[in-house]
Amino acid sequence: MNNFHDEDAMVKEIARHFLPSRGGKLRLGIGDDAGLWKPKLGFVTILTSDWFLEGSHFLREKHPPDTVGWKCLARAASDIAAMGGTPRCFLLNLALPVVATGKWLKGFLEGLRRAAKSLDCILAGGDTTRSERILISITVLGEIREGQEVLRSGAHSGDLLYVSGTLGEAEWGLRFLRKSAGRVNRKNAGMRKHLYPEPRVELGRWLAEKKLATAMMDVSDGLSTDLPRLCAASGVGALVDPEKLPAPRGIYGESARQLALHGGDDYELLFSVSAAGASRLPAKFHGLRLSKIGEITGGRGVRIIDKNGMTEPLRAAGWDPFRRQK
Amino acid sequence: MNNFHDEDAMVKEIARHFLPSRGGKLRLGIGDDAGLWKPKLGFVTILTSDWFLEGSHFLREKHPPDTVGWKCLARAASDIAAMGGTPRCFLLNLALPVVATGKWLKGFLEGLRRAAKSLDCILAGGDTTRSERILISITVLGEIREGQEVLRSGAHSGDLLYVSGTLGEAEWGLRFLRKSAGRVNRKNAGMRKHLYPEPRVELGRWLAEKKLATAMMDVSDGLSTDLPRLCAASGVGALVDPEKLPAPRGIYGESARQLALHGGDDYELLFSVSAAGASRLPAKFHGLRLSKIGEITGGRGVRIIDKNGMTEPLRAAGWDPFRRQK
Repeated sequence: MNNFHDEDAMVKEIARHFLPSRGGKLRLGIGDDAGLWKPKLGFVTILTSDWFLEGSHFLREKHPPDTVGWKCLARAASDIAAMGGTPRCFLLNLALPVVATGKWLKGFLEGLRRAAKSLDCILAGGDTTRSERILISITVLGEIREGQEVLRSGAHSGDLLYVSGTLGEAEWGLRFLRKSAGRVNRKNAGMRKHLYPEPRVELGRWLAEKKLATAMMDVSDGLSTDLPRLCAASGVGALVDPEKLPAPRGIYGESARQLALHGGDDYELLFSVSAAGASRLPAKFHGLRLSKIGEITGGRGVRIIDKNGMTEPLRAAGWDPFRRQK
Repeated sequence: MNNFHDEDAMVKEIARHFLPSRGGKLRLGIGDDAGLWKPKLGFVTILTSDWFLEGSHFLREKHPPDTVGWKCLARAASDIAAMGGTPRCFLLNLALPVVATGKWLKGFLEGLRRAAKSLDCILAGGDTTRSERILISITVLGEIREGQEVLRSGAHSGDLLYVSGTLGEAEWGLRFLRKSAGRVNRKNAGMRKHLYPEPRVELGRWLAEKKLATAMMDVSDGLSTDLPRLCAASGVGALVDPEKLPAPRGIYGESARQLALHGGDDYELLFSVSAAGASRLPAKFHGLRLSKIGEITGGRGVRIIDKNGMTEPLRAAGWDPFRRQK
């Protein structure tokens, strides 16, 4: 496949990887000034938009192009899952250096196509241009039955705090990848989670439909950074029990705890449940572990139980692109 | 205002410039995982997403930050106008170097806020991160009554071809700006159009409501690049009369013609009208000139009348980021 020197040809190449618009909710895909979207009656549309930038969110020499394609859509779809919604369509803004319009683009579109198929999420439009680095900005539209949406702001003192899956596994995988000189081992669970995260759409939808989650968000920047955001939105505090954190298998002790508290990129769901609701919550949802990691408290601020059984403030040490380098 | 070293503080600064969500169609603005949107009954949602990148779409040393804020939203809203729709809300993805998170960001948000107010378009969410250059990706949602949307694909042989306003004026303004060593003269019509384009929302909506336009798009990359796209989508050709092109005031002859044919960034509406419809089209719409510049033909390809009254192919020479530099 050749590199492109023509924007219309590149748009056609992108369109070729995706099914044409098949009527239904998405009336018009790429190829016009804009796309058309009609949600189902009684449903509201959920909107989210995410950056995925070379050098910040991925490295061209470390991350195979298909993983970039998969992950840019998966992580944006995770925001839809975090509201309890179902992803439906997306807009792709892609800026590439000319050298990446050939083989790299083909690999990227393959990964993106697989993620779109797996999520049943249709390409609805976007924009392409040239840049020195690979820049991706992706907008996902989802939908949810009106009134079922789960916000960050609904947690109450006394609610119990849960998280899905494991925490710190993607960060663990990233460390492997950094040491691996670019060789990807898809059998390594951590590496797989770092490269091909799976947004918890079914779980989020189920928690919303059953009205079990009082507040919910996805853990993308690390628990110690994201939990304070949920607490601030709800005007509550939280107490975390480090013994209950679902760390990745094969890692133990303090390093497991640090990974689970601060590791980013897991795209698990963090949610609060009332005490009554907690009795209806299974230990696993379709094989995915649900761990009670603490509780919502009346004060402000997030605290953690220390080695002596006392509590101390949980210091945010997750991912923040604007934080000064330490 | 200080530069930010904390993503949450930056999000708060952005939110401060925009009104809080006031119920109505937008249920939830920034501050949660995603925004919620509910279109009016009987209406469909229009989706569009655009890049606006430092170095490609604007220059930090030439374009004041408020013009960047205005233009990034105005040009994306122009795609909504081009379908006959009304912009309603937008998602802003903003990546900044730390040095641009102070004074530059403040100016940018001022311009963006003015554009949002002028268009009655509400901030619904987005994403912020750090980057070496200023990167903007903006998604706009609009709405239109179902069935009224005007596509690129509806032009028929025998339709007449119209354009709003003037063509080439923004390019003319850009040339002034390049020579001006960064001094902005807001009284210069060309410079004003280059810096503060006004999407033709009222005109687009009127043409859609009255079912006058058979096909429509906005002219963003230059007539010689955009008209072939409309023709390809409709499966028709076009013949352009260069004498009829609405060139900017004060420029004459061949240079006016070249500007009008190839100049980009005008965000005027290009539309086809049936012969019957043309009799109902005024010469001006709320003071905005509507010029008949040619007609839709049965063949493929876009031709232009030459000096001898013969026709020749119109060569695309507008903006294409992937075209080889000449």
